Amino acid sequence: MNFTSDNAYGAAPEILAALADGATGTAAPYGEDAFTGRVTRALSEIFEREVAVFPVVTGTAANALSLATVSPPYGAIFCHAESHIMVDECAAPEFFSGGARLVHLEGAHGKITPGAVESALAHYRGGVHSPKPAAISITQSTERGTVYRPEEIRALSEGAKRERMALHMDGARFANALTYLNCAAADITWKAGVDVLSFGASKNGALCAEAVVFFDPALVRDFEYRRKRAGHLLSKMRFVSAQIEAYLAEDRWLKWAALANTKAQRLAATLRGIPNVELAHPVEANEIFALLPTPLLENMRAAGVQFYDWATVEDGRTLVRFVLSFLTPEEDIERFSLILRKQ
Amino acid sequence: MNFTSDNAYGAAPEILAALADGATGTAAPYGEDAFTGRVTRALSEIFEREVAVFPVVTGTAANALSLATVSPPYGAIFCHAESHIMVDECAAPEFFSGGARLVHLEGAHGKITPGAVESALAHYRGGVHSPKPAAISITQSTERGTVYRPEEIRALSEGAKRERMALHMDGARFANALTYLNCAAADITWKAGVDVLSFGASKNGALCAEAVVFFDPALVRDFEYRRKRAGHLLSKMRFVSAQIEAYLAEDRWLKWAALANTKAQRLAATLRGIPNVELAHPVEANEIFALLPTPLLENMRAAGVQFYDWATVEDGRTLVRFVLSFLTPEEDIERFSLILRKQ
Amino acid sequence: MNFTSDNAYGAAPEILAALADGATGTAAPYGEDAFTGRVTRALSEIFEREVAVFPVVTGTAANALSLATVSPPYGAIFCHAESHIMVDECAAPEFFSGGARLVHLEGAHGKITPGAVESALAHYRGGVHSPKPAAISITQSTERGTVYRPEEIRALSEGAKRERMALHMDGARFANALTYLNCAAADITWKAGVDVLSFGASKNGALCAEAVVFFDPALVRDFEYRRKRAGHLLSKMRFVSAQIEAYLAEDRWLKWAALANTKAQRLAATLRGIPNVELAHPVEANEIFALLPTPLLENMRAAGVQFYDWATVEDGRTLVRFVLSFLTPEEDIERFSLILRKQ
Amino acid sequence: MNFTSDNAYGAAPEILAALADGATGTAAPYGEDAFTGRVTRALSEIFEREVAVFPVVTGTAANALSLATVSPPYGAIFCHAESHIMVDECAAPEFFSGGARLVHLEGAHGKITPGAVESALAHYRGGVHSPKPAAISITQSTERGTVYRPEEIRALSEGAKRERMALHMDGARFANALTYLNCAAADITWKAGVDVLSFGASKNGALCAEAVVFFDPALVRDFEYRRKRAGHLLSKMRFVSAQIEAYLAEDRWLKWAALANTKAQRLAATLRGIPNVELAHPVEANEIFALLPTPLLENMRAAGVQFYDWATVEDGRTLVRFVLSFLTPEEDIERFSLILRKQ
Repeated sequence: MNFTSDNAYGAAPEILAALADGATGTAAPYGEDAFTGRVTRALSEIFEREVAVFPVVTGTAANALSLATVSPPYGAIFCHAESHIMVDECAAPEFFSGGARLVHLEGAHGKITPGAVESALAHYRGGVHSPKPAAISITQSTERGTVYRPEEIRALSEGAKRERMALHMDGARFANALTYLNCAAADITWKAGVDVLSFGASKNGALCAEAVVFFDPALVRDFEYRRKRAGHLLSKMRFVSAQIEAYLAEDRWLKWAALANTKAQRLAATLRGIPNVELAHPVEANEIFALLPTPLLENMRAAGVQFYDWATVEDGRTLVRFVLSFLTPEEDIERFSLILRKQ
Repeated sequence: MNFTSDNAYGAAPEILAALADGATGTAAPYGEDAFTGRVTRALSEIFEREVAVFPVVTGTAANALSLATVSPPYGAIFCHAESHIMVDECAAPEFFSGGARLVHLEGAHGKITPGAVESALAHYRGGVHSPKPAAISITQSTERGTVYRPEEIRALSEGAKRERMALHMDGARFANALTYLNCAAADITWKAGVDVLSFGASKNGALCAEAVVFFDPALVRDFEYRRKRAGHLLSKMRFVSAQIEAYLAEDRWLKWAALANTKAQRLAATLRGIPNVELAHPVEANEIFALLPTPLLENMRAAGVQFYDWATVEDGRTLVRFVLSFLTPEEDIERFSLILRKQ
Repeated sequence: MNFTSDNAYGAAPEILAALADGATGTAAPYGEDAFTGRVTRALSEIFEREVAVFPVVTGTAANALSLATVSPPYGAIFCHAESHIMVDECAAPEFFSGGARLVHLEGAHGKITPGAVESALAHYRGGVHSPKPAAISITQSTERGTVYRPEEIRALSEGAKRERMALHMDGARFANALTYLNCAAADITWKAGVDVLSFGASKNGALCAEAVVFFDPALVRDFEYRRKRAGHLLSKMRFVSAQIEAYLAEDRWLKWAALANTKAQRLAATLRGIPNVELAHPVEANEIFALLPTPLLENMRAAGVQFYDWATVEDGRTLVRFVLSFLTPEEDIERFSLILRKQ
Repeated sequence: MNFTSDNAYGAAPEILAALADGATGTAAPYGEDAFTGRVTRALSEIFEREVAVFPVVTGTAANALSLATVSPPYGAIFCHAESHIMVDECAAPEFFSGGARLVHLEGAHGKITPGAVESALAHYRGGVHSPKPAAISITQSTERGTVYRPEEIRALSEGAKRERMALHMDGARFANALTYLNCAAADITWKAGVDVLSFGASKNGALCAEAVVFFDPALVRDFEYRRKRAGHLLSKMRFVSAQIEAYLAEDRWLKWAALANTKAQRLAATLRGIPNVELAHPVEANEIFALLPTPLLENMRAAGVQFYDWATVEDGRTLVRFVLSFLTPEEDIERFSLILRKQ
């Protein structure tokens, strides 16, 4: 019963099949293949405008390359204190950008607000003594399993534009957010002011495939040079693009995300009914954050339920995280629910 | 008829099968999986000593991460003027190391010699005014399809040790070299003084899999931090390790390389028999460099033979490169040979 | 009446005289001159052990070069949220180190505590997902004009050693702290566990002179390469060393700092007697932080008193900073005191 | 008798006097002082157009900051194989730019030609596999004591513009070149297509003062952020600007350079008359490169003549360098000439 992360699961058969298809015959190397072209067209349709698309193999690469493109080495990037770029990527944005600084903001439910950005900016307007405000980065869905509404994104984007900053979205779980909102992909990206998106697939059925999507071609600049010199331009790039192509085909990405979200809702419903258990945040995507008492946690572990501790809370309860994948076996959720209900 | 590069070909079915195997069930993410452990053991056996192994997805990442580990930001790295790190990786070593300098040396048949290193070193012994000599990097097999002999490597290594430099080997086509020499893998690596090896698989049947192999554990230092912050630690690392595991199993890597070498020998034999055609270098691995007259090149192109021009030579002939893969169809070689013999 | 900063003042005549002395004749360039050697000997005496000394022209260079020497590019450096390296150096430590992260800690009176470091460390022990703990940096005297006691430094150093981190001290106002404590220079540096010190002179009478002082020769590594490639090895290095030599001679540095501290005490005493004015921190060095009501601030400005606003406080008062230099004219303090007493 | 370098000499009394003048009273720190403004106006007059001026303390800083401004981290910078940025600055351009590559070109008399640039460019037009052509850097006067003519600079600039590259000039000895050509400063800079100039003063009488001069304001971008985060924005910037102000006043810079050049001519004339001695390059500025036989070199050294060996030449003679400063004592030249004539 593995609820540690959606990346603990393997790959969807449809994606493996696409790899096998892609494996035959020769193809132009280094992204000049037909697969990559088709992915760009597919994403242009999804986003209802022409976009520039660059496949990479990790979310860290997608984020760090995006941020290095929109921030100079002496830039400041504003993000949530718990964002993946801040706490899980070993200072990759600092490395790729050549020394930019991440400025972390607190915010309820994993979200940052225009007010928090504004307060932080006050310390970054003193001229050359501080790094130059360069970008805001938000995560959709957030690191706490919540989802930014279009108007929340737009408000952040307006603040960004006023300060001539770019708006980046870490969409490692973009499909989960989109499914939840049930709106158009454009509504929470370029129409809301997002300049560049890390479009994730690895956590939702792919082996290793993310795409950097630029909505403003002028921002792309020399992204390809950056990707190449970071060792992220694969000679057989078609194998990354083939994953994304299969991921997008037949709306699989949305169906899989919807399935993961539904499973999360199911488990959340169970948790809500357990005494002394409390959900810490609205469950909007495929992640659940809940406060659980120590004895329950011990029982769960003894029964083989895997998950991550997030923090110890003062009343003796622990904040823990459960992540659901469309590949999470139904029976695992059932067994886990039984354990919970036995309390 | 694609002779442009071994990376123009796809992936071996055995490797795809391993991916499918790896895709089921859950696994610890970020390289904590069982696959990665098994690859380390397999390579330790192959190299007849305990080695530290770090899978990555590109040769550029393998090379740049290796070099950044053995060179400080103010280091000088000595390599052949035509080495991949010098001409094909968009200054990735400079990026990963934080500004080290590649010092390029001329050398016949794609090889550097201790004498060439020594001459260059003369300019790098003036103290802080020049970058500090940090490493020698050689390519095995070389960018001209030749193969360093164990004693050639040892001689370079002795020079490196005297200057307290590390010796790195770019083994994108390591299997092809090893097959040609018919010696033990240890003989051309740590026994000959190599400290760290970029062990390639992508050009020889994998989708995207290389392994950085450290022979001296003390050199590893914080390699894992470097890989992570470069976005090269995949969450589903098992899919890279699974490729390498399948690649090494049943001596496939050697058999495939031997097949590619044999195909190169066959084509080279044909070329030797064509008037006004000349082989530029000994054909020892799976690459052929030959001087061909313009009319022949035009016929070849018209007939659909694909290859890379390397340089224009003064007598009207062009130096071109042909690369053979174990996946190159026999019939392509046959058809190409017929075209050649018709001259 | 300039109380904005000690760097608003010029240079001491004794230091200018030393420059004129140094200007005649030829000298070996790039730090091979006799002046630099003499400075090393003088500081070795002051610190009662052999130290390695590297003069530079700015505190930012001293700090960033020191930190880059003790932190890898993937390192985490723990410091106060208001430290100069955090808020006044435009991410220079990030640049020089190649991407290390500054982790900022809150702490009363400008000081960090072992507890604050320990709490922050909890987020940096998760292996490669976070930068590797590399160093603690403290400022002596602090950015709030207070002074770390030897035992406070020792406690931080013990925490650093346990985690294999280095301890750096930004001593832009080291002389002011030392004078206040009236102890040996060794007591608040290497005897308390400090590994490397940015020893300031520019704020205390020099034109542009700081010295990086390493107490542990093993930590020096290739500092000289770093200084050179950062453009901080002057061809006529003697002119920086000459400033430091004159600064140290006849205990000038201590006398000047004592004078600045005394002036600060005098002004602080006056401020303590003014209604509705409150000192925010103990005045221990040459800086005063005080809460002043708006009408008083307006009178002060109208009368030509220059100073920096630090923050607006809720009760209508503003936190402002006054810095005293040994060069601050006595009559300026008198005039300012009169203005204050008129309230 | 020191002919090793112009930086072996001290500072001119006029410059020291300016420092003493600048030392009194308070001034806005970090370049907001009146001195820096005056220097910008003085240089704008000299160059007959409005220029942006940024004082720094070393030529390495001036060059590396300039190049980092005009080259992205993935850029290629074309320069002479013996240029200061290539051989004397410990890879500072690589550091400041974040990994750009210096591509070194051979060329007679220390000069590069449009043809040499064009040949090198052929290897840098393959797209993302190579760094992107970003800049040409030339030295005026060159590292071999020769001087680019306006039309030579213009020809290089045209090639640069065609490739969208910037043209940087390392003018560590700009005054010596200008004096020799006896033309307007504009003629060999912006009118000939130079975009940014490292304007030197340290080798010609200052203690530590260079100015980065941008002719195209659009290129300046965030130069000030770069200077600050490199630790090259001095708090008491006025002491650097004061040096430059005094250097420019009353045409001192040109008079001093003319004097140095004249001294070089005098010594060159003597050398021309000595048997078995040969000048290696035209003597156009204040450096002389000559081939001298071993016995003569031994006599010279025995007599206390200091100079640098440049290279050993096959016929038993050694290429050596003599540099003249306006501060080189006349009697030293006389004594040296006597030694030479005694051969």
